Amino acid sequence: MTRDTHPHATHPNPRPTHRRTFLTTTAATTVLAGAATLGAAPAPARREPAPHEAATGRTERERNGPRVGILLYPGFTLLDATGPTEVLGRLPDADVALIGERRGQVRTDTGDVAVTADLAVDEVERLDVLLVPGGGIEGVVAAIDNPALLNWIRRVHRHTRWTTSVCTGSVILAAAGLLTGRRATTHWASAEYIESTYGVAYVAERFVRSGKLLTSAGVSAGIDMALLLAAELAGEEVARAAQLALEYDPAPPFDSGNAAEASQELRDLALRLLADSTAG
Amino acid sequence: MTRDTHPHATHPNPRPTHRRTFLTTTAATTVLAGAATLGAAPAPARREPAPHEAATGRTERERNGPRVGILLYPGFTLLDATGPTEVLGRLPDADVALIGERRGQVRTDTGDVAVTADLAVDEVERLDVLLVPGGGIEGVVAAIDNPALLNWIRRVHRHTRWTTSVCTGSVILAAAGLLTGRRATTHWASAEYIESTYGVAYVAERFVRSGKLLTSAGVSAGIDMALLLAAELAGEEVARAAQLALEYDPAPPFDSGNAAEASQELRDLALRLLADSTAG
Repeated sequence: MTRDTHPHATHPNPRPTHRRTFLTTTAATTVLAGAATLGAAPAPARREPAPHEAATGRTERERNGPRVGILLYPGFTLLDATGPTEVLGRLPDADVALIGERRGQVRTDTGDVAVTADLAVDEVERLDVLLVPGGGIEGVVAAIDNPALLNWIRRVHRHTRWTTSVCTGSVILAAAGLLTGRRATTHWASAEYIESTYGVAYVAERFVRSGKLLTSAGVSAGIDMALLLAAELAGEEVARAAQLALEYDPAPPFDSGNAAEASQELRDLALRLLADSTAG
Repeated sequence: MTRDTHPHATHPNPRPTHRRTFLTTTAATTVLAGAATLGAAPAPARREPAPHEAATGRTERERNGPRVGILLYPGFTLLDATGPTEVLGRLPDADVALIGERRGQVRTDTGDVAVTADLAVDEVERLDVLLVPGGGIEGVVAAIDNPALLNWIRRVHRHTRWTTSVCTGSVILAAAGLLTGRRATTHWASAEYIESTYGVAYVAERFVRSGKLLTSAGVSAGIDMALLLAAELAGEEVARAAQLALEYDPAPPFDSGNAAEASQELRDLALRLLADSTAG
């Protein structure tokens, strides 16, 4: 898809307003109306695609903003990776890349979904933000038994502005030696493990900052953490706009997401759902 | 990954408790401890993999629960699809499949991510739940200009228990003729468009139910909608456990996700972030 081949040209309901109008008009402007404005706007200057863009089909838009790498490994948890990817990918000129041990499809813990790693770890030396998602048990165990992967995390971490994790991704950061003696969080069910195994001071908060290390609680907490990161990277106004763009005004129909307030029965059932939904 | 090749067998910290223990013990049980229990549990009876499982590498676990299909099209919005996939994939025996016009990788609106469609639309006749994610402008316009895709949606819809959308996915359902005269929601910026173009009665709620049609607001709202769906499909207790499993106790650092409360400046900036982050 490029702007040159914008299908709106043949669409029955074009709204050929100029882009300036799109950015300043009020209620009449809709996201879909924006399609027309993009089509009518002058084409931006093209730059030469970076090698990985040419190779992978990633897009050619200007990417002078923060460089964000999301690590994928077999058995990662889908939303751990995709929630922050969605938020951070909306920042101006952000370059968000999914990175695997090798390029190619990486399947999630449930086995239901494969996401493509567009880059391999040996192609990536520098990142502004490294994010390590959590995963199913087998996936996390395989990751922490993988010295090459842990070495890469340590190497990239040296130069990051932020090294971050979601859910049991903090177990992987801990196994890489990055969380020893630090305050950090993880999925509620892994709190004791990370404390006893890695000497991490578990904190039952949505996200925890310790220097440039930023860890978040289970799965969905990565979205909240990513909004904080967005503010750090692009300013609070942009972070607030990203939140509005994603209409993140959460209103779950139930109020059952807090482990500290949950019954033991519900905790057991939650763990059983996790275990049974994990591919094996 | 199969249980037969569980890497835990060689892991330095095995915790070989029995699965029964995993399900009934209290604080000492962690998600990672669960790894050992899975490894130690007797292997479940195997069934023959369904043809699409054998072809795609999807997993072999029992799938007698609800069959959920997530439609992917070029330019879909990542979190629209993956938020509900994460929730619904945790339901007992749920069979969640990502479906494209053809099998293969489908890239998101930002161009940053490719997700694999494991099935093609012509392989899928019956679903308990159809979910149509929203997308970038070009992606949605291409989808509503695609009669074959709209025909497939209409055909599958005849037999669904629930036909659902996230964000501008409701524009696609509307273009398929499924929302005419109905109450529905969409991304705040597409509210006027869907009303004026398709005769839909827009409702500014997180999700809106109209018969078996269930639409949700922008992007992140799909997670909230999926929890309601989870309760409908598997009962409220399971839905609550899924919420706890995903630690969905949202606490964004800002309170800027509601368009009705946002300034015009913030709305304009949000629309600009969406436009500029969309691949072109």
